[in-house]
Amino acid sequence: MQALGRHLLVELHGCDPEALKSRDLIREIMVSAARVANATIVGVSFHEFSPFGISGMVVIAESHLSIHTWPEYRYAALDIFTCGDQLRPDTAAEFIRVKLKCKNASLVEVRRGLIARNGKRLSHKVSPLPEKAAHAYEELSMAY
Amino acid sequence: MQALGRHLLVELHGCDPEALKSRDLIREIMVSAARVANATIVGVSFHEFSPFGISGMVVIAESHLSIHTWPEYRYAALDIFTCGDQLRPDTAAEFIRVKLKCKNASLVEVRRGLIARNGKRLSHKVSPLPEKAAHAYEELSMAY
Repeated sequence: MQALGRHLLVELHGCDPEALKSRDLIREIMVSAARVANATIVGVSFHEFSPFGISGMVVIAESHLSIHTWPEYRYAALDIFTCGDQLRPDTAAEFIRVKLKCKNASLVEVRRGLIARNGKRLSHKVSPLPEKAAHAYEELSMAY
Repeated sequence: MQALGRHLLVELHGCDPEALKSRDLIREIMVSAARVANATIVGVSFHEFSPFGISGMVVIAESHLSIHTWPEYRYAALDIFTCGDQLRPDTAAEFIRVKLKCKNASLVEVRRGLIARNGKRLSHKVSPLPEKAAHAYEELSMAY
């Protein structure tokens, strides 16, 4: 059985609460993490909530990264979903853990989309459709 | 132990491949599913890949919904991450399963952000900051 996707569910407890409150910082960390993972970014969306807390997603050609923060509990829920064998999701997870000064992290890896393929390599989404992706990323960037 | 978030990981095998190829349809289904779940939508980002396949995310005030489709395998990986007790993520998952004509679905629920709170109710992000969220959603809508 081969898997189409690799999904890391990362629990980040004991983080720096000030970092978890900053939309700009969280966005910067997540976008940098996508680059650290060797991913191709196609969409970015980060939002701040009342009284505090950030939710954000980075859509990548190889799936997504998402984060939800609860500064009051010094906790963030991080997901890194990738496909293909060119990415480094573990490195991205460690990058984010360090940036958030997380003291207690745990990680569960789930293999998504198990398919019987008898040893053949699985296809994955290697590149976004150029015009549409470029357009979308440009528009999304305006929302910062 | 109480959980800050409820995360459904849904494996959708045996879906209608034509549905899995259509960015407009997938976006419509996911946005409708967020409403079915009683969620507050704050950001939407959907992308089409070459040769085919859709990746998309709906950021909600209560966390997110995401989907990645592989039409060639009739498979989609769906995630529904919610917080608070006002949402109906199971109903949203079933809504999407039916819309994609999925024949073989499986679901794993993960409780995210376990916190010892001695019976007190946990806070969750009840509302986005009005100006920023409205602005962001407007900009994101332009990317359609």
